[in-house]
Amino acid sequence: MSEEPTADLGFARVDLDRERRTGDPEVVYAAGKTPDQVVAILSRLHRAHPERAVLATRVSDEAAAAVAVGLPEAAHHVDARAVTLGQFPTPQGRVCVVAAGTTDGQVAAEAALACRVHGADVETITDVGVAGIHRLLAVRDRLDAADCLVVVAGMEGALPSVVGGLVGVPLIAVPTSVGYGASFGGLAALLAMLNSCAPGVTVVNIDNGYGAGVAAGRIARQSNRSAGSGPR
Amino acid sequence: MSEEPTADLGFARVDLDRERRTGDPEVVYAAGKTPDQVVAILSRLHRAHPERAVLATRVSDEAAAAVAVGLPEAAHHVDARAVTLGQFPTPQGRVCVVAAGTTDGQVAAEAALACRVHGADVETITDVGVAGIHRLLAVRDRLDAADCLVVVAGMEGALPSVVGGLVGVPLIAVPTSVGYGASFGGLAALLAMLNSCAPGVTVVNIDNGYGAGVAAGRIARQSNRSAGSGPR
Amino acid sequence: MSEEPTADLGFARVDLDRERRTGDPEVVYAAGKTPDQVVAILSRLHRAHPERAVLATRVSDEAAAAVAVGLPEAAHHVDARAVTLGQFPTPQGRVCVVAAGTTDGQVAAEAALACRVHGADVETITDVGVAGIHRLLAVRDRLDAADCLVVVAGMEGALPSVVGGLVGVPLIAVPTSVGYGASFGGLAALLAMLNSCAPGVTVVNIDNGYGAGVAAGRIARQSNRSAGSGPR
Amino acid sequence: MSEEPTADLGFARVDLDRERRTGDPEVVYAAGKTPDQVVAILSRLHRAHPERAVLATRVSDEAAAAVAVGLPEAAHHVDARAVTLGQFPTPQGRVCVVAAGTTDGQVAAEAALACRVHGADVETITDVGVAGIHRLLAVRDRLDAADCLVVVAGMEGALPSVVGGLVGVPLIAVPTSVGYGASFGGLAALLAMLNSCAPGVTVVNIDNGYGAGVAAGRIARQSNRSAGSGPR
Amino acid sequence: MSEEPTADLGFARVDLDRERRTGDPEVVYAAGKTPDQVVAILSRLHRAHPERAVLATRVSDEAAAAVAVGLPEAAHHVDARAVTLGQFPTPQGRVCVVAAGTTDGQVAAEAALACRVHGADVETITDVGVAGIHRLLAVRDRLDAADCLVVVAGMEGALPSVVGGLVGVPLIAVPTSVGYGASFGGLAALLAMLNSCAPGVTVVNIDNGYGAGVAAGRIARQSNRSAGSGPR
Amino acid sequence: MSEEPTADLGFARVDLDRERRTGDPEVVYAAGKTPDQVVAILSRLHRAHPERAVLATRVSDEAAAAVAVGLPEAAHHVDARAVTLGQFPTPQGRVCVVAAGTTDGQVAAEAALACRVHGADVETITDVGVAGIHRLLAVRDRLDAADCLVVVAGMEGALPSVVGGLVGVPLIAVPTSVGYGASFGGLAALLAMLNSCAPGVTVVNIDNGYGAGVAAGRIARQSNRSAGSGPR
Amino acid sequence: MSEEPTADLGFARVDLDRERRTGDPEVVYAAGKTPDQVVAILSRLHRAHPERAVLATRVSDEAAAAVAVGLPEAAHHVDARAVTLGQFPTPQGRVCVVAAGTTDGQVAAEAALACRVHGADVETITDVGVAGIHRLLAVRDRLDAADCLVVVAGMEGALPSVVGGLVGVPLIAVPTSVGYGASFGGLAALLAMLNSCAPGVTVVNIDNGYGAGVAAGRIARQSNRSAGSGPR
Amino acid sequence: MSEEPTADLGFARVDLDRERRTGDPEVVYAAGKTPDQVVAILSRLHRAHPERAVLATRVSDEAAAAVAVGLPEAAHHVDARAVTLGQFPTPQGRVCVVAAGTTDGQVAAEAALACRVHGADVETITDVGVAGIHRLLAVRDRLDAADCLVVVAGMEGALPSVVGGLVGVPLIAVPTSVGYGASFGGLAALLAMLNSCAPGVTVVNIDNGYGAGVAAGRIARQSNRSAGSGPR
Repeated sequence: MSEEPTADLGFARVDLDRERRTGDPEVVYAAGKTPDQVVAILSRLHRAHPERAVLATRVSDEAAAAVAVGLPEAAHHVDARAVTLGQFPTPQGRVCVVAAGTTDGQVAAEAALACRVHGADVETITDVGVAGIHRLLAVRDRLDAADCLVVVAGMEGALPSVVGGLVGVPLIAVPTSVGYGASFGGLAALLAMLNSCAPGVTVVNIDNGYGAGVAAGRIARQSNRSAGSGPR
Repeated sequence: MSEEPTADLGFARVDLDRERRTGDPEVVYAAGKTPDQVVAILSRLHRAHPERAVLATRVSDEAAAAVAVGLPEAAHHVDARAVTLGQFPTPQGRVCVVAAGTTDGQVAAEAALACRVHGADVETITDVGVAGIHRLLAVRDRLDAADCLVVVAGMEGALPSVVGGLVGVPLIAVPTSVGYGASFGGLAALLAMLNSCAPGVTVVNIDNGYGAGVAAGRIARQSNRSAGSGPR
Repeated sequence: MSEEPTADLGFARVDLDRERRTGDPEVVYAAGKTPDQVVAILSRLHRAHPERAVLATRVSDEAAAAVAVGLPEAAHHVDARAVTLGQFPTPQGRVCVVAAGTTDGQVAAEAALACRVHGADVETITDVGVAGIHRLLAVRDRLDAADCLVVVAGMEGALPSVVGGLVGVPLIAVPTSVGYGASFGGLAALLAMLNSCAPGVTVVNIDNGYGAGVAAGRIARQSNRSAGSGPR
Repeated sequence: MSEEPTADLGFARVDLDRERRTGDPEVVYAAGKTPDQVVAILSRLHRAHPERAVLATRVSDEAAAAVAVGLPEAAHHVDARAVTLGQFPTPQGRVCVVAAGTTDGQVAAEAALACRVHGADVETITDVGVAGIHRLLAVRDRLDAADCLVVVAGMEGALPSVVGGLVGVPLIAVPTSVGYGASFGGLAALLAMLNSCAPGVTVVNIDNGYGAGVAAGRIARQSNRSAGSGPR
Repeated sequence: MSEEPTADLGFARVDLDRERRTGDPEVVYAAGKTPDQVVAILSRLHRAHPERAVLATRVSDEAAAAVAVGLPEAAHHVDARAVTLGQFPTPQGRVCVVAAGTTDGQVAAEAALACRVHGADVETITDVGVAGIHRLLAVRDRLDAADCLVVVAGMEGALPSVVGGLVGVPLIAVPTSVGYGASFGGLAALLAMLNSCAPGVTVVNIDNGYGAGVAAGRIARQSNRSAGSGPR
Repeated sequence: MSEEPTADLGFARVDLDRERRTGDPEVVYAAGKTPDQVVAILSRLHRAHPERAVLATRVSDEAAAAVAVGLPEAAHHVDARAVTLGQFPTPQGRVCVVAAGTTDGQVAAEAALACRVHGADVETITDVGVAGIHRLLAVRDRLDAADCLVVVAGMEGALPSVVGGLVGVPLIAVPTSVGYGASFGGLAALLAMLNSCAPGVTVVNIDNGYGAGVAAGRIARQSNRSAGSGPR
Repeated sequence: MSEEPTADLGFARVDLDRERRTGDPEVVYAAGKTPDQVVAILSRLHRAHPERAVLATRVSDEAAAAVAVGLPEAAHHVDARAVTLGQFPTPQGRVCVVAAGTTDGQVAAEAALACRVHGADVETITDVGVAGIHRLLAVRDRLDAADCLVVVAGMEGALPSVVGGLVGVPLIAVPTSVGYGASFGGLAALLAMLNSCAPGVTVVNIDNGYGAGVAAGRIARQSNRSAGSGPR
Repeated sequence: MSEEPTADLGFARVDLDRERRTGDPEVVYAAGKTPDQVVAILSRLHRAHPERAVLATRVSDEAAAAVAVGLPEAAHHVDARAVTLGQFPTPQGRVCVVAAGTTDGQVAAEAALACRVHGADVETITDVGVAGIHRLLAVRDRLDAADCLVVVAGMEGALPSVVGGLVGVPLIAVPTSVGYGASFGGLAALLAMLNSCAPGVTVVNIDNGYGAGVAAGRIARQSNRSAGSGPR
């Protein structure tokens, strides 16, 4: 563990102490940062935490290219718009990421990657929107077997309510900005998820796959269900 | 049919010509009117259209009591907060009103009554919220057999999307103000229904069971499906 | 009919079973999909439903060009931003699409095409905004003769209220994003239509010509009015 | 005219100079004031302007009772929830107040009274909602003959657009809070009026009959149209 | 005057009858129209009303260039983003357009031009924002001498309230989208103007200089004040 | 376990199958139900699940009195506005409920009771608002020792962000409607929590202590951390 | 000063340490607390800080009566809905509270009392709304002489912009909920103040006179202007 | 000081009198102005106030380049998007600008520069977001030593509440538009700051570093605390 709790890079003061406090290293939110800054922060975080992967999200093509040059050992996860540097931790517990439509795929991929970086195994099921409910019913057992669910949907955001009525697994809903008109940039899906009639649904910000993945990773990796003996 | 297109009652000018133009008599929206006014307008409309029921909606207990005294032949539909005066028309076609929860019952009852007054037969199915999807799947055949569906739901308003994915029957969604907090008086359900991923869902105002019933009644009574030979 | 209910294209799982459930094939919402994906899904849907037209909406110029190369037998409906592949079904019933202004034309065209693809005949009347009410009154008979109306308007969205007071035909209102300032992207028109004082007006999402067309097509094709003997 | 521009009543500093600056005396907005305060301010304003009526709006039953006792010469206009004290000025020009429904009556009455107090003659036409457009067309000549129009409507607020397309008279639209659900307390009507496709429509606050009356009174009393020779 | 009330240009049905109904010719809202369409409509309107100027607003640089080529006798009013074709009418009455800041200039110029086209004389006063109140007080006499005022302001939209307290001239407030953050595209100014404590302020849509000009032109040209004998 | 998946009580169809699907019995949301209905549903649920407590939330004083008479063995939890009937399950795992202020107490109590009913042990810490950060720092160890956190706050809703930066325990944030003015009924706190800069914060509806308790109970009872050997 | 930083009253944990940290004792926000709780907290705070006044705001009539009985030495400030217990501190610096209308009086009184409790002298000027600008100009010197201004206004909230353009004194604007319709509970005034074109205006929550008074008290009591030698 | 209170530049009327009224020269808000206009206004203001720096904010790269050519003695403050011309005044008092994250840096820099131009010394502390509260506690003494604080934060906007609970220094909160989804362009942070539970927090518009700097500069330069003898 790092001696110094904070690393001053001039343009940012990186929190190196987060892992000690919370069990997870700080993550680079790359939007609004220059490619060089992304490379520099990733590099510094990796030096502080060489034993496990560090993560950058919302990585532009330009920043990804800079990372490819400056940190050739880093991995670019194109579908998730993200970069990782270092080994993934040994997974504990399993998260199932469920997405309503193909256009929700980027958010789902970000969630899945964040789960993996934060220590859980992950499985992804896509294109199970509520307008074709048979597709969802067909995968009920896989939903029930997970330690935590991340359910991603845009438009009317109804999927978490249906899933939350099928199984009692902890469930994190992610509204996406997919839609138009009275979707108001994801507001419709967000409100729907907050008002879910299925008990126990919790919600994150619009398009915040990362935040859902962190929460799900924490829940799954401390779960005793995967061992087969857990209560429900 | 009335000779005069408008009846001037002093406090209101009643449109007696609507039936000729649209096939339906004018309806009394009783909210904001005094009990005496409700009685007077109902009476006048009945005189113009003695052959078929006239309808008053959003009837307060006070107005219902005044109607019971002044128009003893009127029927008070308590669950729909409504009053009718005159015979229902012979039904043509059938509407199925589907409600997500018990608390949506008043809006569903208003919709069902409006369907009946506007000339269609009606069947009501309640308590089939999406958090217990098996209850809905069990009635799929009844949904499919209708000439038009009215789907009523509050909170996250997800029910029309699921129903709309099961059958291709014309579907009118009614958001209700059931909920609290970020439901914002039914706004969440309204936005969800407007953004439904199931194609062909149309929507009316929050708690507007009456409007949905009028639309469904018109669609059903001109339908050739009930005869068993209709296309789909 | 297809043997498999779902076709897995890698990037999407296409619902081939929708026609059996709802009477209509799935439609490609092309926004957010690559030109190649649009071509692939159209092609796969056409293979599953060779006997009737499949539809792609919100098709960009790039996607339309790709379709022209990859599926030369497809038709590009420029004014509706849409592509169809296959024969239109024999029309049953007739929808009248009414638009307030010329700038509402694209949404009206999408609605008209969707009606046709979903099995109804269609007639379009444009430039009949309420600020020149004589233009609307002059076409009252054509409105009354339809099996279903689709009324398209932006800005203050008043047209459905006036039309809905003239005739009793089932009416679907489509708010458009035409306007500026306090139009708030079509919100003003949407709210106006939801609050229409004309009974029986139902509403779809802002700019959702497609959804209105699906609903109107279903209503019209099951109508017995066109035969001249229908009730009103 | 008063010597002092302001009268200090302890609980309020009454602007006695407004008439000199603007041609109109200050008006008492009685909401939120005690009955005694309403009586005191009316009395003081009347003393400063004995030659013409002073006005109090939004007068509660309690305040009206206190005025009846303390200022027996005052007139209580029940339908407008208002009180006047003193003679109306000789009218110049004529305003036509047009209301969509009976429930808009209180706002229309407040507007009409304000017109009269501010120096114009006034005529009121009610129950001419757009869902029965023939009622409006029947009064077109009366609309055209006015020096200014005040058009009052709740729900979808479409009436000003239709009226504004019929005649070129200056037109002030007043949205009312009549409605429910997605009316959002009059917001739907307000937005509709602000987005009117009829050129030249101006708008005041929701339920602000008084403000519309002041504006219309000013416009009408300086008009040369009533004399028959005015341009249009 | 034209024989036909409507001219069908294929892409639009131009209302040639508006002048007979309202005293003003139809105006071309050029936003969303192609340069060729703008030229065609202007040309057709001018043919119907050769005796007075026709107006196109929100004219892009491209459309203006096309007009310069196709209608060389047209005048391009750059500061108002507008084009006129034909002689201005002889002015009757005078409007004073008042703008808070330099960035409100384009909206003020559009208002002024619309006044002129609709028959009134016009004077413009700029840069008299309320944060330097002395600039406004210095022009009080010019404000008082007008037949109608158009007051244009963005940001907090306070100017109409101050002006409306200084003089009793009919006043139309125009909120602009000038501002950022919690201005929400002009919403802050719009709400402020609707809630003005100065009686008689009426409001148009955000950035709608044209609508304000039409209303003000109508009010001013029928005014008898300019003749020196008018009441106030 | 019940044989029938649904019990029809006439006014409601109670879902008796939820426990089998999700591990939790259905809960009575008493708001909007009559006292007799609350008693009847509680009684029926208890009969189906005699081995563990059933719960009614948002219980009015009237309903609580009816329960006291009809189901004397039930427990009334006044501070949580709730009633339980039957034994609490043996707790597994521990939830820590943290509340910012005393006025958030009712929501916190509802959350704590729901945790207990859903199978987890619970500890509550109150009055640790961020404006006195020392109070929060003093209890850091207790926060870190929990299997799940529920963080309740109104007004600016900042508490979850600070807590989420101190420990890496799964965290569910509950915005409350405590506040006034620009709190907009809890909207300010809701938006703040959705935008938390602390990773992994998930959110439920305004005042939804129950939903947070269900989610936290599920997370805690499957946790292996309490045993002392869990990863973080 | 108290030995313990927090006093646990069972229903609340009172922060006794705030004075040491911030220079001001904690204040009782009485809304939502029982009369007994208000008495108990006031009593405990007074014991901890006997040398200076403690304050309770938003005190209901019931709570005020309980205080009158339980703490007879307390002072009830009826116009500010507040109670104080203990001596006011010797004032340093002077705040001028300026209110637009009489209905803003309660908020202004709360602000003035908070200033006084937090150590500054205070002067109040009322009824200087912008629609009568001469009333404001007449007091310009008093505004300029203050160490800090608190400017209170409802409706369009324009007063801070005008005052902020007259003098360079630190200025805190307080929007009030006075208004109706599109005031949206004070939102219009709040947005206006946030968008003020006068530089240096800062804003507090709607109706938050207390918060403005705390801020103004702090600014004034550290000011060197009152001594006559301060820079501007 | 200038003889003329206003300088007419043709395109703008520059207020040269502001310094006399308020102690501060007018500032150029460069957004929406051409590079040439920015140069001209800066030049004119500098001529009127040669003894102290004049400021232009929101300066685009193009405008900055034009200033570099036309006014080579001007200083370009890149991080603040601003230009100054002339000597900074001798500082009196000290402001501490505190920013939550690196992406809030531009707003913080604008605030700091405005403080300096308006006469106060300034210190900036960045990257002290509430999710790492130890970073903030480490600088408590520096916060306490300032005459005024400017606290800048986006996303959930929690930082002012925490800082406002630590020290009693006058505090101005600046919400930024940093965030996405339910941040709604800074609305979430704005509402949070307006609802702060820390007493005495005042707020400016989203991203309005300049306004905060003006207010803080005025507060700090009149402070007697820096001298070591001030009260708290």
